[in-house]
Amino acid sequence: MAIIEQTLAHIRPVSSEWRMKAQERLDSLTKPKGSLGRLEELAARVVAVREEERPSLEKREVFVFVGDHGVVSDGVSAYPQEVTALMVNNFLSGGAAINVLARSVGAEVSVIDVGMKERLAGAEGLIDRNVRRGTGNIAVERAMELSEARSALEAGIEMASRAHAEGMAMVATGEMGIGNTTPSAALLSVLLPADIKAVTGKGTGLDDEGVRHKIQVIEKAVSVNKPASNDPLGALAALGGLEIAGICGLCLGGAAHRMLVVVDGFISTAGALVAMRLNPAVTDCLFFAHQSSESGHRVFFEKEGIRPILDLGMRLGEGTGAALAMQVIDNSLKIYNEMATFEDVGITPGA
Amino acid sequence: MAIIEQTLAHIRPVSSEWRMKAQERLDSLTKPKGSLGRLEELAARVVAVREEERPSLEKREVFVFVGDHGVVSDGVSAYPQEVTALMVNNFLSGGAAINVLARSVGAEVSVIDVGMKERLAGAEGLIDRNVRRGTGNIAVERAMELSEARSALEAGIEMASRAHAEGMAMVATGEMGIGNTTPSAALLSVLLPADIKAVTGKGTGLDDEGVRHKIQVIEKAVSVNKPASNDPLGALAALGGLEIAGICGLCLGGAAHRMLVVVDGFISTAGALVAMRLNPAVTDCLFFAHQSSESGHRVFFEKEGIRPILDLGMRLGEGTGAALAMQVIDNSLKIYNEMATFEDVGITPGA
Repeated sequence: MAIIEQTLAHIRPVSSEWRMKAQERLDSLTKPKGSLGRLEELAARVVAVREEERPSLEKREVFVFVGDHGVVSDGVSAYPQEVTALMVNNFLSGGAAINVLARSVGAEVSVIDVGMKERLAGAEGLIDRNVRRGTGNIAVERAMELSEARSALEAGIEMASRAHAEGMAMVATGEMGIGNTTPSAALLSVLLPADIKAVTGKGTGLDDEGVRHKIQVIEKAVSVNKPASNDPLGALAALGGLEIAGICGLCLGGAAHRMLVVVDGFISTAGALVAMRLNPAVTDCLFFAHQSSESGHRVFFEKEGIRPILDLGMRLGEGTGAALAMQVIDNSLKIYNEMATFEDVGITPGA
Repeated sequence: MAIIEQTLAHIRPVSSEWRMKAQERLDSLTKPKGSLGRLEELAARVVAVREEERPSLEKREVFVFVGDHGVVSDGVSAYPQEVTALMVNNFLSGGAAINVLARSVGAEVSVIDVGMKERLAGAEGLIDRNVRRGTGNIAVERAMELSEARSALEAGIEMASRAHAEGMAMVATGEMGIGNTTPSAALLSVLLPADIKAVTGKGTGLDDEGVRHKIQVIEKAVSVNKPASNDPLGALAALGGLEIAGICGLCLGGAAHRMLVVVDGFISTAGALVAMRLNPAVTDCLFFAHQSSESGHRVFFEKEGIRPILDLGMRLGEGTGAALAMQVIDNSLKIYNEMATFEDVGITPGA
């Protein structure tokens, strides 16, 4: 069996028994029942994902998948394509936002070239899994062949396996790729499904005219490529990005190994959505980090009935929102592991 | 001049020059302008409060003010009054939620008895500034004398001065006091002002009938005490709590010393509101940590045009939300201090 199908076969929903066991402990801690709100919900899910009495999430890693996008030639981004490579160098030298925040939360950062246009030969620390030098322009052709999408997805699964082998309990998705809100919006429109207008936003800084143009480009991409909403891998190959495929792979591989997968913003969500459509049980292991200010993100959460952890008006990507959310998850688990129980302090639990 | 008036005279708004200077630096960092959303807004305000080129917030402390409430005899809480003292012992032995979260964010915890009913003689670590053994029952009498409210408020100012002397840059408010959502709702109704029904919620776990009763009790308290909305200290004495007065003092003293004051949930907000009505400039130094699930909290934020940092459905108090928010503020400042600039990496800033 191929790696992808093998991984999909390993993913199962978390057990309600572990959740209930966790909730029992939460209810024995010195606080009114439920008064820590989402911290309690997060802790219970962590226990259920890890299937451990007292889980530890100490080792964690952010995976930044990088790819370029042919559709940039159609003027869908406020930044030129060259910025992808410049930012990768910034990641590798530790000066980008994701480096700062990952350091802050004790996470390693790995940067994976799955589809950069520029070859950064000898860039120290860059993991080279390049599948092709950027996607085709989805406004006139398919983004990539199905085999290429599968290869990029397998790179994501490989990263999850590596992390698991190194004892990681929690991984986060991140990405860089000038223009990648466009394929992300296209994928959301097909796989949610949703109106293209509803899921298309300003990206890194388009004006209203720019957004109108971006909507037209996505409409063209969908009409040229005719993706089917019941064929997630086909849609990914037709409209997606190589870094989006990598993220999808990390979600699947992470869930198969029962790691927490913290999903960053809008682009990461597109990758996660492909994974959810391939196997809905993956969702139990996904922790959606934050509500991005990219307008289409809200549509995803509403349609899927998911509440992200943070809402800080961020729209940078890279994994920055995921890094912040890791800290909230940490705290939820510290509450679970470290608080005194009512029995310890001699209080009879109230309402 | 008395300490309170002296403190009030020291509080001034943050300068727009420092804010602009901070925003300039934020715009030079390797990210699209504004793409870190509220992290940028928080960092700019921290710089403006501290008036430092590269502020550090390393030293921080959570102050948990404790008081009891005569109104508990009217059945407004799901827990008996004895729980106040039991929880104080839990704070002092390090097993409560606030201990866990403060450890997690590197903050010290101080517990101050400003108005406990029970005398915890010799309780190691408890700071004794007891003004009176619990408030009067506001449904039939005033909570305390004006002089008592002033003493509890001065204890809060004293804590701020102590923290400042010890080099703290950031303090957080916390509280414990069975029944204290009732005086808090009463204060909000008078000082916002707002409809009593709109600001009265379930507290630690009342049912609908309990909430209806609590509303009647507050209506009675307001009609018996006849507080004036333009007399914040008078309203505090008539309807408030000693821990609420302590929190008000910490807000004022913190702002006077130009520390960040991270305001926890619903009860802390009532104390902060008294401070804001005494001197509106205090608001620049207040960082409202989170949207509590106590329903009236939303009314405060809407009326005052303030957006809290987190929204995690918490309603525990103690300073738990404030501890979590400290970490977000930390991260905003790390972004500000540590990220590479466009110049560093050779990118021409885009839109």
